[in-house]
Amino acid sequence: MEKLESYFKQLVEHKEPANLYNPIYYTLSQGGKRIRPRLVFLSTELFGGDIEKAVYPAAAFEMLHNFTLIHDDIMDRAPLRRGRPTVYKEWNTSTAILAGDALATMAIKEILETPADSRTVIELSRLLAETSVEICEGQQKDLDFETADSVTIEDFLKMIRYKTAVMLAGCLKAGAILSHTSETNQLAVYNYGIHIGLAFQLKDDLLDVYADHAEFGKAIGGDIQDNKKTYLFLRALQDGTPEQQKELLYYFSGESFDAQKKFNAVTAIYEQLQIKSKTELLIEEYVQKSLSELDKITIDDSQKKEIFKQLAIELSSRKK
Amino acid sequence: MEKLESYFKQLVEHKEPANLYNPIYYTLSQGGKRIRPRLVFLSTELFGGDIEKAVYPAAAFEMLHNFTLIHDDIMDRAPLRRGRPTVYKEWNTSTAILAGDALATMAIKEILETPADSRTVIELSRLLAETSVEICEGQQKDLDFETADSVTIEDFLKMIRYKTAVMLAGCLKAGAILSHTSETNQLAVYNYGIHIGLAFQLKDDLLDVYADHAEFGKAIGGDIQDNKKTYLFLRALQDGTPEQQKELLYYFSGESFDAQKKFNAVTAIYEQLQIKSKTELLIEEYVQKSLSELDKITIDDSQKKEIFKQLAIELSSRKK
Repeated sequence: MEKLESYFKQLVEHKEPANLYNPIYYTLSQGGKRIRPRLVFLSTELFGGDIEKAVYPAAAFEMLHNFTLIHDDIMDRAPLRRGRPTVYKEWNTSTAILAGDALATMAIKEILETPADSRTVIELSRLLAETSVEICEGQQKDLDFETADSVTIEDFLKMIRYKTAVMLAGCLKAGAILSHTSETNQLAVYNYGIHIGLAFQLKDDLLDVYADHAEFGKAIGGDIQDNKKTYLFLRALQDGTPEQQKELLYYFSGESFDAQKKFNAVTAIYEQLQIKSKTELLIEEYVQKSLSELDKITIDDSQKKEIFKQLAIELSSRKK
Repeated sequence: MEKLESYFKQLVEHKEPANLYNPIYYTLSQGGKRIRPRLVFLSTELFGGDIEKAVYPAAAFEMLHNFTLIHDDIMDRAPLRRGRPTVYKEWNTSTAILAGDALATMAIKEILETPADSRTVIELSRLLAETSVEICEGQQKDLDFETADSVTIEDFLKMIRYKTAVMLAGCLKAGAILSHTSETNQLAVYNYGIHIGLAFQLKDDLLDVYADHAEFGKAIGGDIQDNKKTYLFLRALQDGTPEQQKELLYYFSGESFDAQKKFNAVTAIYEQLQIKSKTELLIEEYVQKSLSELDKITIDDSQKKEIFKQLAIELSSRKK
């Protein structure tokens, strides 16, 4: 992982124009959890591939991720990211658009440099490009939901699949491709990633309402405040009585309310409809599905799968 | 070329979400001169490559070009393109950002599908990605110029090289790579492209001031009106007396002026300094350089170079 950090540094050092490469480095150097490169490395280890070579797809997927953050922050008008001003706030919208554009293409350049045979390089590059298009599709769906009259739970799950899960799955598949494992294994680890991705996003939405404030470290109830159509909201809307539906739609209508009053009213309906446990149940379902995908993977030392089991369980039981 | 049109259609047909793929098709189907795919085809013919295969890089470069148009129009706040509302005007900024993002990646996906050996596919993909990063660099430089106190002619020529010329050169090189011609030929046709690209852009700036209105088909003097730092302006600033410099800077200061009065005053200085003929001379220099690059190309039937000579001469003598 340290290799990755120095990697990002040399990628932009002394590059011109500064107004393009400074925001790129600003974003890449903020770190975050580096979940995506970790998944590339974990998967490469699982299938016995070469970790040195994995630095290229690992860097590429992290760059792709950061490109989506820069552009999403423009669309969401988000002022802060990881405690610092977002790129479009620190610079301006044009620079943020361009920095994202350059970063997306630099990710492709990066993966094309993977020191592997040509067929593998092409497969990895296709995976990255495919993933990138799907993420754009997911983000557009998400934007569509903001103004849509009604969103089905099926639509919602498809949206988070594209917006969040395909990237995690793609990282895992990249490690599998690099390690020349079987197509069955590639598919299984990809599907494992899809399911932990879905569980991860649902857990995020759950914590936004039900986290312990002290442990969570950020404000509770932001999604309710912003009228975000999360699984919790859509499930309540689906399961609610006509009165409950009406009340929910009233609070999510865009009118202004006292934040605490709105939070209390919405969570009261959630409580009546047992939305918390219903969401936990769905998360558990996805975790189980991810574990059964793990079972399909054939490797010599099946002990190596343990860390992936742990990961699935941790994601679903985390408190922040 | 017709193949290309049906190609773009099937690329987006029945794809979801519509709010992502409609703006993409809206842009791709507007046509324009299709200069970039034409250059890929011309170069492939020059070096005896397979035209059928060239459809892939041709489509990819046209998609890359259209991605840059969609994003540039946001940055330039341009309301119209090819006589129709720009994507961010017809939809909104978020959709325009995403449509551009998706199109850029679809271009990479496209070129990765070129039916050629793996090494060629990788080389083509690297070329496309490299070109895309350079175009971002050029666009950022252009944005930097808007607020820069002083811009040297050297900076300006570097900017248009990246913003405009590398794409044309890249198209020509793509045909050369696909045809497996020598590296010397690849480099020569690339450099030919750089020089005609520079000539093309300078001619554009010249026509914006000196075109015959009836033939040109659009308003004259837009660059002067918008205080654009073109070659004409920068050269006048370089060659002018302190008084002329002061007057130019006064008219380009961002204050509002009567458009006709401003145009007359600025072009009067251009006339005193012979800016028109100085610009024509530089264009002619680039045309000559492009022709001498052509001389470096070794092919069996050197008659095939004729069309490239014609092209260089036409670009510099065009009236619109």
